[in-house]
Amino acid sequence: MAKYTIGLDYGTNSVRALLVSVSAGREIATSTWTYAHGHEGVVLSRDPNLARQHPADYLQGAEITIKAVLKAAGRKLKSFKTSDVIAIGVDTTGSTPIPVDSEGVALALKKRFANNPAAMAWLWKDHTSVVEAAEITALAKRLRPQYLAKCGGTYSSEWYFSKLLHCLRTSPRVFDAAYTWVELADWVPASLTGNEAPDKIRVGICAAGHKAMFNSDWGGYPDKAFLKKLDPKLAELRDRLPAEAYTIDKPAGRLTDDWARRTGLSAGIPVAIGAFDAHLGAVGAGVGPGTLVKIIGTSTCDIMAHPASKPLADIPGMCGQVNGSVMAGAIGLEAGQSAVGDIFNWFVNYIQPGGETLGGHEALTAGAKKLKPGESGLMALDWNNGNRTVLTDQRLTGLMLGQTLYTTPAEIYRALVEATAFGALTIINRLEEYGVKVRQIVNCGGIAEKNPMVMQIYADVTGRPMKISRSGQTCALGAAIAASVVAGRRAGGWPSVKTAQKAMTGLKARVFKPDRSAHKIYQELYVLYRQLHDAFGLDGWSGSCHNIMKQLLDIRTRVRK
Amino acid sequence: MAKYTIGLDYGTNSVRALLVSVSAGREIATSTWTYAHGHEGVVLSRDPNLARQHPADYLQGAEITIKAVLKAAGRKLKSFKTSDVIAIGVDTTGSTPIPVDSEGVALALKKRFANNPAAMAWLWKDHTSVVEAAEITALAKRLRPQYLAKCGGTYSSEWYFSKLLHCLRTSPRVFDAAYTWVELADWVPASLTGNEAPDKIRVGICAAGHKAMFNSDWGGYPDKAFLKKLDPKLAELRDRLPAEAYTIDKPAGRLTDDWARRTGLSAGIPVAIGAFDAHLGAVGAGVGPGTLVKIIGTSTCDIMAHPASKPLADIPGMCGQVNGSVMAGAIGLEAGQSAVGDIFNWFVNYIQPGGETLGGHEALTAGAKKLKPGESGLMALDWNNGNRTVLTDQRLTGLMLGQTLYTTPAEIYRALVEATAFGALTIINRLEEYGVKVRQIVNCGGIAEKNPMVMQIYADVTGRPMKISRSGQTCALGAAIAASVVAGRRAGGWPSVKTAQKAMTGLKARVFKPDRSAHKIYQELYVLYRQLHDAFGLDGWSGSCHNIMKQLLDIRTRVRK
Repeated sequence: MAKYTIGLDYGTNSVRALLVSVSAGREIATSTWTYAHGHEGVVLSRDPNLARQHPADYLQGAEITIKAVLKAAGRKLKSFKTSDVIAIGVDTTGSTPIPVDSEGVALALKKRFANNPAAMAWLWKDHTSVVEAAEITALAKRLRPQYLAKCGGTYSSEWYFSKLLHCLRTSPRVFDAAYTWVELADWVPASLTGNEAPDKIRVGICAAGHKAMFNSDWGGYPDKAFLKKLDPKLAELRDRLPAEAYTIDKPAGRLTDDWARRTGLSAGIPVAIGAFDAHLGAVGAGVGPGTLVKIIGTSTCDIMAHPASKPLADIPGMCGQVNGSVMAGAIGLEAGQSAVGDIFNWFVNYIQPGGETLGGHEALTAGAKKLKPGESGLMALDWNNGNRTVLTDQRLTGLMLGQTLYTTPAEIYRALVEATAFGALTIINRLEEYGVKVRQIVNCGGIAEKNPMVMQIYADVTGRPMKISRSGQTCALGAAIAASVVAGRRAGGWPSVKTAQKAMTGLKARVFKPDRSAHKIYQELYVLYRQLHDAFGLDGWSGSCHNIMKQLLDIRTRVRK
Repeated sequence: MAKYTIGLDYGTNSVRALLVSVSAGREIATSTWTYAHGHEGVVLSRDPNLARQHPADYLQGAEITIKAVLKAAGRKLKSFKTSDVIAIGVDTTGSTPIPVDSEGVALALKKRFANNPAAMAWLWKDHTSVVEAAEITALAKRLRPQYLAKCGGTYSSEWYFSKLLHCLRTSPRVFDAAYTWVELADWVPASLTGNEAPDKIRVGICAAGHKAMFNSDWGGYPDKAFLKKLDPKLAELRDRLPAEAYTIDKPAGRLTDDWARRTGLSAGIPVAIGAFDAHLGAVGAGVGPGTLVKIIGTSTCDIMAHPASKPLADIPGMCGQVNGSVMAGAIGLEAGQSAVGDIFNWFVNYIQPGGETLGGHEALTAGAKKLKPGESGLMALDWNNGNRTVLTDQRLTGLMLGQTLYTTPAEIYRALVEATAFGALTIINRLEEYGVKVRQIVNCGGIAEKNPMVMQIYADVTGRPMKISRSGQTCALGAAIAASVVAGRRAGGWPSVKTAQKAMTGLKARVFKPDRSAHKIYQELYVLYRQLHDAFGLDGWSGSCHNIMKQLLDIRTRVRK
């Protein structure tokens, strides 16, 4: 009898459920639901750095999408029974911490805090905590350099403790009401399994290791003495954080009766430990030694899994290197670009070049495709949302130069695509400089799927073939793979992530091969990109222009006051 | 009996005739006509640097617009007789040289060359001659530094000899067919007076001095030995160039019978020596010692008149300092920005932000006006068409930085306006550094007239009041003032430019005063602008980014081949 698992994939704007066959990863049914709160699921404010989400959306989204895929699977497969679904996996954005009470209930679900953005989920791309991130980085540099060595040398404003500290300082009422803070990747499995209570919750090593400096080398989360220097209340909170963190092949618990009723699934099926979308996306794209998986969406995550048995130096500028964060037995390496699709979307949606009809992604792509590398004379930096790797600096902004009186929207669009490709190459170079050989690149995510021009430019810029994951939903598929492992062999699942990957993942036939002459031009252009990158990105660059963007931001902050 | 003069103003896209009263500069009638050839009067090609015009348009435009103003004046004033028009003045763009045959007939007017862009007028903004400009600059630096000292240290690709040399090399058939090359500012008066023949033509000191290194100190145009080093054919041409050049208070000749018939004017009325639009625009705006006139249009020209009796060092980076180029007895100082309105137009017409309806100049201005200085976090360089002053480098391009995922078209529009204001301030600073005190600034041109936000930003950035010329057509008015002088007192004209200015020019009541707090922010922002300006503009800047734009342009040129 065929068995199935469901991957629940919590993205920036919507949640998706994917129902797949355990035997071959066949995608039977999928359903998405856009979060109800805010603008396309993101709660914004006058502060352009703020981005929150309402936890109610996460629960409602699980119910709606699971019910939808069960219904669709039943329609599609005569033999399908909901009891054939043997487990659930969960992937989410992150770091997206949620303040919860002593029973694990999200504060925003309480009437008192329902409309308070500080009590909601602090979405990964919330950049309100820049000052706190700098403070944590500075303190760790002085007292605990080992903490920073595993996250590229800089603790980000996007991450767990930066956000907690910012809340503590700017919304103390919320911070005081919170018993603890739970990552979205842990909160969903905990909610589905009734293990929300802080003494019962089982958290993933992915979120804890990459965003909260959790490492078994120093006994889990950062030590109390360190946290106390930031704020005594953070040290107190340390006592309420779990001692262990788990890999995705472990269960977070079993589906509650209540959730079984709400969804139609069988009560008691296991729910896998949650992880970030990028990490489970990499699993769903077949990540393994030598394979770089690029999940290209609004932002991009680059994931590799380096055998834990092999030596690996601390790589400066990575988002993190965490044992077990992708799969057990491997050091998960995470790098990324803070905005990729978001930059193209900005141009289309905010600038709206040539009117909405003329200047949509398709029209711009058609125009950009006709251009040769270097033809526009434009060069851009892909920093509209800061730089995650290798500069790890949120306080960088976009740059474009080379404009004439005849520069067209299509030229700008292509320059933005090229900028993200140059950014991608910078990450690959950094990995290889530190001995992590990139033998193949597998792309996934909406842009990799839908825009061959982008993939060709990536191939031409990097001089490497670009492969595409067979699945269009690698994140959800990765979650379903984790589910197929925690289901256990007896229930029809797989014994390990590796065996599950072999059965359930694959590549598309079409490979984007680099064009030699285009690559040659891009090699020249990349030198210029590096010049700009270093001039504006590196403090120590001689005769640096580094301070300009920062001072503009400072002035902006001041005049807005 | 009231007397009138006509100013003919040849702009980039159209020609305007303005009929004014000699007594008070009252503007009786005006008429414009867009040149028939090319795109809005400019003949373009695949090469984005090429910009030409068809000489036939200049003659047709004179006829159409003069007839129109005479008709309109007759309708408006009962007493008006066409014989009350006592002279014509002419201003034009420049350097806009036209190849002509031995009788002064423009080659493009001959069937054989009618459609050959090389045989047309080489419009001021034609940038095909970058290589030749660099060669002339290098040669002059070595052999005739005095030539360069009067034009800011660099001979521009926009100028006379660069264009001739480029034609010689790339279209030798046209160059060989040309007996000589005549500036548009000289060609129109010569055509109207039948003095086109090279032995009869009287040329203006404005075009010759600013664009062709004409200076009585070294006997007029550059010497033959110098030109021979560029090309022997240029040296031969030197023999066919006039020996004298005149100020605008001198006549180019008298209107021919044929032109009297074509227009309805009286035959024999004097036509003044032609000059550039900016210089006559300055005259029409009341230029005099201490007064900087900014003619803000597609590009901007900054004109001052420094008493010839007072000492004046050679100012690096000026477009030129030429005795008599604005008026007799004063050293005309010309500076400028290669694109101002053109940058805003580029954004509106090429990028078309927010669709045509949403993103027009008015909507963008309304949005930009709401922003405070520094609020957008954006900073731009105003170099989309190169930098005319103080870097005198056509091979510079635009730059914008500070973009986020939320940057709006209005923010970009404001940043572009601010960039041009910073560019304007850079010119003022350079003048004052060399002892040319700027005591008042009078603005004119379409943007000064129509966009109070731009004027307020200029006031806030420079920290100086911005005054506006009373006339909306200062260039044409300046030409009419020149006409009122060459008409002679006996015919009802004025004895000098100064007396004519006093009677015929004035200021508007509204003065844009700098806002102190805005100016303070802009003082900070200007430091950043200078950093960018010097980083990208100065070769010697330590750790310079200067090469980036050049290399991009080189690559672009190469891949287009």
